[in-house]
Amino acid sequence: MEEIKVMLKEKDIPKQWYNLAADLPNPPLPPLGPDGNPIGPEMLAPVFPMNLIEQEVSTDRWIDIPEEILDILYRWRPAPLRRAVYLERYLDTPAKIYYKDESVSPPGSHKPNTAVPQAWYNKQFGIERLTTETGAGQWGSALAFACSLIGLECKIFMVRISFDQKPFRKIMMEVWGGNCVPSPSPETNAGRKILEEIPDTPGSLGIAISEAIEQAVTDPTGKTRYSLGSVLNHVMLHQTIIGQEAKAQLKLLGEKDPDVVIGCAGGGSNFAGLAFPFTQDKINGADIEIIPVEPTACPTMTRGPFAYDFGDTACTTPLMAMYTLGHAFIPPPIHAGGLRYHGMAPLVCQCIVEGLHSPRSIDQVECYEAALTWARTEGFICAPETSHAIAGAIQEAKKAKEEGKEKVILFSYSGHGLMDLTGYDAFLSGKLTKYSLPDEELEKTEVCLKDFPPAEMKKSGKW
Amino acid sequence: MEEIKVMLKEKDIPKQWYNLAADLPNPPLPPLGPDGNPIGPEMLAPVFPMNLIEQEVSTDRWIDIPEEILDILYRWRPAPLRRAVYLERYLDTPAKIYYKDESVSPPGSHKPNTAVPQAWYNKQFGIERLTTETGAGQWGSALAFACSLIGLECKIFMVRISFDQKPFRKIMMEVWGGNCVPSPSPETNAGRKILEEIPDTPGSLGIAISEAIEQAVTDPTGKTRYSLGSVLNHVMLHQTIIGQEAKAQLKLLGEKDPDVVIGCAGGGSNFAGLAFPFTQDKINGADIEIIPVEPTACPTMTRGPFAYDFGDTACTTPLMAMYTLGHAFIPPPIHAGGLRYHGMAPLVCQCIVEGLHSPRSIDQVECYEAALTWARTEGFICAPETSHAIAGAIQEAKKAKEEGKEKVILFSYSGHGLMDLTGYDAFLSGKLTKYSLPDEELEKTEVCLKDFPPAEMKKSGKW
Repeated sequence: MEEIKVMLKEKDIPKQWYNLAADLPNPPLPPLGPDGNPIGPEMLAPVFPMNLIEQEVSTDRWIDIPEEILDILYRWRPAPLRRAVYLERYLDTPAKIYYKDESVSPPGSHKPNTAVPQAWYNKQFGIERLTTETGAGQWGSALAFACSLIGLECKIFMVRISFDQKPFRKIMMEVWGGNCVPSPSPETNAGRKILEEIPDTPGSLGIAISEAIEQAVTDPTGKTRYSLGSVLNHVMLHQTIIGQEAKAQLKLLGEKDPDVVIGCAGGGSNFAGLAFPFTQDKINGADIEIIPVEPTACPTMTRGPFAYDFGDTACTTPLMAMYTLGHAFIPPPIHAGGLRYHGMAPLVCQCIVEGLHSPRSIDQVECYEAALTWARTEGFICAPETSHAIAGAIQEAKKAKEEGKEKVILFSYSGHGLMDLTGYDAFLSGKLTKYSLPDEELEKTEVCLKDFPPAEMKKSGKW
Repeated sequence: MEEIKVMLKEKDIPKQWYNLAADLPNPPLPPLGPDGNPIGPEMLAPVFPMNLIEQEVSTDRWIDIPEEILDILYRWRPAPLRRAVYLERYLDTPAKIYYKDESVSPPGSHKPNTAVPQAWYNKQFGIERLTTETGAGQWGSALAFACSLIGLECKIFMVRISFDQKPFRKIMMEVWGGNCVPSPSPETNAGRKILEEIPDTPGSLGIAISEAIEQAVTDPTGKTRYSLGSVLNHVMLHQTIIGQEAKAQLKLLGEKDPDVVIGCAGGGSNFAGLAFPFTQDKINGADIEIIPVEPTACPTMTRGPFAYDFGDTACTTPLMAMYTLGHAFIPPPIHAGGLRYHGMAPLVCQCIVEGLHSPRSIDQVECYEAALTWARTEGFICAPETSHAIAGAIQEAKKAKEEGKEKVILFSYSGHGLMDLTGYDAFLSGKLTKYSLPDEELEKTEVCLKDFPPAEMKKSGKW
């Protein structure tokens, strides 16, 4: 029997991050300010430290990973590459299914791959405190974890309804010394304003972002910055350690290059982390199908227009060129909280525009069926987000069986589901139904997008 | 830098379980029936399948692990041996601290190491359904997991107060197809009786055991058996894969034999799993200190008498020779639910009697302090039970520093704490206090023990 778990030695961990921006046939459109003109790095300086802004705008192909960051990542990296032999047997497929297991990190997902470098670069820049927002709590706990190891204060604004419904995530952040408060909070102008208007509001990610950014930029000592867990270029960059490891592990196995690479995509970071190193191969001629999977309930890449839009509901970020359902889009409460974002990482969007990535949407019921099949064959309980990647892999494995092809399928196992079992409960009790975003909702999106660009921007002709 | 994670290849997984009963200087005292005479294997037949009873009474040193069982264990085994370099640096100790990471199994602990073989042997014996009880839910979810992969029905009686307080564990069991009901339940005579007397009872492990055994022995088809997650000889046997792997991994590293081996002990199975292969070395002359750690709140090994006692509160099991706080002992509600058992595995107890193991008790506050240090150095969040092993390892590492000795410390990391975060919350909010069992409580134990043996047994002179 072949080994089903493939480990890299720690000494063989990737020593550089891969920057896809260096290889894209056409560079992504630049972020714009409210006047419709591209923003310069200095405009981001109150929010992010300059060393991370440099990474954000870099077009260098390879960026060295500092040894001190590797020393922290060794706690769980290199992460295992595993072959899903039990699922293969169950599906009776000629395909080989490999997955990169990012659930093994202390917070349980791929998020610390960027939380650690972000905290480290902030610390290097003299920053003492990071603020961020979190919805379901996955990103908040990853940043608390990173700040704990690196020695930064960490303040997390958690959407109130999640704060109340998921007390375990909050405790997790506190174990790592994080300070997690429900948002809206009385600590910020943005929070106080909402609390006055709607005292019993459940909160939203948009409000939480506003609070986190406000606390960062208004700190009179200048020692506070804000941290974001997905979407931005430097976040994608940090995650490319995933795909680089996977490549080395397939090589170690003597396996051929994958035919299909799959990841779930909310803001895009775990997908990009696995996919970008293979996207480089595809640009250089390799025959690989690269599939970001999203929910039919939040079909950003498959049904949204490609447009300039804000990254947040409160319209405080620069305008980014991306597939979007509109910054005012309120996704229905499907259980994959990490996939409910209205936009998508501009680098991933540019790959879709270039025909390098082929997005697909899958219904949550099919995803939970895949998750249950996974738990009862492979044994592990996956995150609701990850179930979208598994469902995609199962679709491809079935296709390989129909075609009688010995395909190699590789997907990103972005996290475990041990903190998200209520979604399974809803599925097992038959309370989840199929849901695709209705056309009339999509039309509202178009209206929202046509409505938002400021006059300057419309004049500039960039819209 | 040396590697901090040591993996065995799957082909190097142990192919046999190690049976300490073959090497003990004096065999453990036999279990007795209510008449004070040793019970024969046939008396256990209504409860367990004969192939497991054979393992229970075997004195063969090595017992082959069937290939079909290994095929299931490969999902997560061999488990990593890891070196706690970050904790070592924090403690500034000359000791090297290694730990065997049993938290990587799908249910998150060492429990499936025995759940899988138990389910497999039952299936081989023609059994179709297993019943069991669970307190905090760790064992129940491990058995549901094993039954799901092997194709058995699984019925779990979960202590009602845990059922209500820990809904996630119940969902976990259901993901693996387990049927988990609160105990007492209206499904058994034992349950109905209690519900009539005390309708709002929180339940107890004793009641849940009675219900599970009753459903197993009263099934008219004869196709149901009962399964126990600790204490018994065959459970210790199945867990020895832990210590055998650890030995091979230390050898692979070129590391010397450990000076100290540590595990937390409730019923004794994760401790025994790591310790028994090293206990064999100690019997053969090796200089190893082997330390089972228990809470000061439930000091079975350090303060209880060595006596014949029942394994359950309801007095339905055979009498076992062990350290015990008395079968009527109700431990205080410390958060390490898995360490609240009144007795201890007879094989572990015999090792203590022989001077092979040196038990130690540690207060829960020191254990949570150790868990927090662990989370903020190593990064991972441990189970409350596991924190007792970590606290023991920290004590030993500090001692090594005082003595200036380069000791090798090895402990069992029995499980993660992601489903047990409420204990951390209590600790962080200052709600946990030091607690040692008061002497007057211990005296009650003695009374209980003097009171229980039936007249026949007293006459037999075995008490």
